Amino acid sequence: MTGRLYGLGLGPGDPELLTLKAHRLLTTSPVIAYPQPDNGPSFARQIAAPYLRSDQLEVPIIVPMRVERFPAQDVYDEAAGRLSHHLDAGADVAVLCEGDPFFYGSFMYLFERLAHRYPTEVVPGVSSMMAAAAAYGRPLAARNDVLTILPGPLEDEVLKARIEAAQAVVIIKLGRHFPRIRALIASMGLENCTGYVERVSLEAERLSPLADVSETSAPYFSMLLIYKGAEDWARSSAARTER
Amino acid sequence: MTGRLYGLGLGPGDPELLTLKAHRLLTTSPVIAYPQPDNGPSFARQIAAPYLRSDQLEVPIIVPMRVERFPAQDVYDEAAGRLSHHLDAGADVAVLCEGDPFFYGSFMYLFERLAHRYPTEVVPGVSSMMAAAAAYGRPLAARNDVLTILPGPLEDEVLKARIEAAQAVVIIKLGRHFPRIRALIASMGLENCTGYVERVSLEAERLSPLADVSETSAPYFSMLLIYKGAEDWARSSAARTER
Repeated sequence: MTGRLYGLGLGPGDPELLTLKAHRLLTTSPVIAYPQPDNGPSFARQIAAPYLRSDQLEVPIIVPMRVERFPAQDVYDEAAGRLSHHLDAGADVAVLCEGDPFFYGSFMYLFERLAHRYPTEVVPGVSSMMAAAAAYGRPLAARNDVLTILPGPLEDEVLKARIEAAQAVVIIKLGRHFPRIRALIASMGLENCTGYVERVSLEAERLSPLADVSETSAPYFSMLLIYKGAEDWARSSAARTER
Repeated sequence: MTGRLYGLGLGPGDPELLTLKAHRLLTTSPVIAYPQPDNGPSFARQIAAPYLRSDQLEVPIIVPMRVERFPAQDVYDEAAGRLSHHLDAGADVAVLCEGDPFFYGSFMYLFERLAHRYPTEVVPGVSSMMAAAAAYGRPLAARNDVLTILPGPLEDEVLKARIEAAQAVVIIKLGRHFPRIRALIASMGLENCTGYVERVSLEAERLSPLADVSETSAPYFSMLLIYKGAEDWARSSAARTER
């Protein structure tokens, strides 16, 4: 009997936004794996930290942070090999994933290497864009809205056409693309319809109308919400809800 | 001191997909409100049922199921009035929401009537589309994919243009629009790139390649996932994961 592989969605950051199921599998799996950048701590591990025990074996997967490239696949070849040893030995392995494992997540790279060899279950999690809408106190999408999610690295002309065709837009993966995207949004006359969200659901959470953001770059865990036709919603909404 | 209003995202159906936070607020709020159709049980209440206690006051909000119309606003005027009585008396009120409260949810109608008068918190939940991708064992979106969510009642020409412009598409609110949407997808040559999902995460969960679905209508809690350029993914993916 091999072990089981779990991809656990841990939600946007607040440890209380884990699901009961993710909590159960996190606390009963003997092996806990998580991505970790080569220049800092693992955010996924930070979310799970209140629930981890010293008798669980931790397996960090060190992911080089390279500019503008997807992680080298040999990182995941090697990680899959290490996890296979534990699975072959009959140990269940839980892979920790920020947000939802299958919403632009890196768990897919382990899944495609291991799911055909071991019983595998993906546990969905709360996405940071749902948490951002909740924090702002404004629906992410409603009625018959078209909602489009756009990765920031896409070219301006693609972003522009997709923004024009939707009622509600979420732009993720801002990083160093932030000044370019901000200029695009301003050129479309949508700056007052856009809210900026950083580290949602954490102590350091920051909500701001885009017009009030002075920085020229944005952290990885940030996003923009655009609601067309809703002038100044980001200013008026954020004050309404408590967190 | 008034009570606090909570909008609790309960996730897609499996009671274990509640967050720890939703579970805490559900079990500590003295008043529990939920939408209920006039022709059957409340799905939100069914998700929460394992955790409800007899000393909690339940307040069903009866929503008439009308064809092709959004619920009459007087339903929410009246419900907001009833919840106000409890909030004014100092009781916390938890409103149960399927999935995520602000992802095409009806909680917005209560929120816009009450959030400016009472301390209000929206607790994000796991969306059924995240759960559908997890069940299929295929990322909802990856890398720099454009992901678009489309409500089924939109006209064919709108749906077609938005499907053409995205890599990954989720179509929600199928219902009686199902045959029309299916014909559209077939006319675009995408039938083999489309998976059908019904009652995800419940006992009655059903995953099927669209080409194998024989029904001419679809229940409210169903959706389509389209991955362009991925022929027959729905046939090959579903078999891979255990649930």
